[in-house]
Amino acid sequence: MPLTSLTAEECWQLVSTAEVGRLAVVVSGYPEMYPVNFTVVSGCVLVRTDPGVKLRHGHFRRVCFGVDASDVVARTGWSVLVRGVVHELSDHDPRAAEFAAAAARIHPWAGGEKAHCLVITPVAVTGRRLVPG
Amino acid sequence: MPLTSLTAEECWQLVSTAEVGRLAVVVSGYPEMYPVNFTVVSGCVLVRTDPGVKLRHGHFRRVCFGVDASDVVARTGWSVLVRGVVHELSDHDPRAAEFAAAAARIHPWAGGEKAHCLVITPVAVTGRRLVPG
Repeated sequence: MPLTSLTAEECWQLVSTAEVGRLAVVVSGYPEMYPVNFTVVSGCVLVRTDPGVKLRHGHFRRVCFGVDASDVVARTGWSVLVRGVVHELSDHDPRAAEFAAAAARIHPWAGGEKAHCLVITPVAVTGRRLVPG
Repeated sequence: MPLTSLTAEECWQLVSTAEVGRLAVVVSGYPEMYPVNFTVVSGCVLVRTDPGVKLRHGHFRRVCFGVDASDVVARTGWSVLVRGVVHELSDHDPRAAEFAAAAARIHPWAGGEKAHCLVITPVAVTGRRLVPG
């Protein structure tokens, strides 16, 4: 089954259909990835988190945000990768109010206060889809 | 909903239930992740691939293999991360015959010959599960 590339517009449309994505970071030379709830606002991906591995990347380190879906019966699927830099939202951010309001609407499945908001600013967005035939 | 840690045994049992995982690699400083079909043999994760980003990591670079599942209705899920090193299977591998036979039983959804087999040798396995209540 051939893989076809998705346009940026198609990528964002697919991302908007998902409730869970994955944030990939680099820790001690190893890539790691963590499922996260998220939202997209003004072209940025927002994730709420508690202090930990993810938050320690919140000073403009390179990360990747991925969303994919697969249909085990049809053996098809799609995958979108958002490469970008992540920073922790602060009051100094020119979009602080807009981002904080959007982050408040994320309802993380996992417990914890998750009072910190990570903002992933995309550098590149790519996607692929398995197309039958 | 609290997160609980999984034992290595629980991690591998959950991994065995999945048909699709994600291979995370580091490219130009950015983590990236790609959905892959896989199998587990003798404690190693095998992935078939064609020449490309993933195969270029096949000389004992650090990677992460992840599998997760989420239940959007119950808002629960689990996630397993296998940190390890990856190499391309060759005839010189002491387990070449066993691994090649196992790799032949992987039926990748995506097209392409996928004649190359990547062997991920785990360095650490961790997992978490969201537990209701």
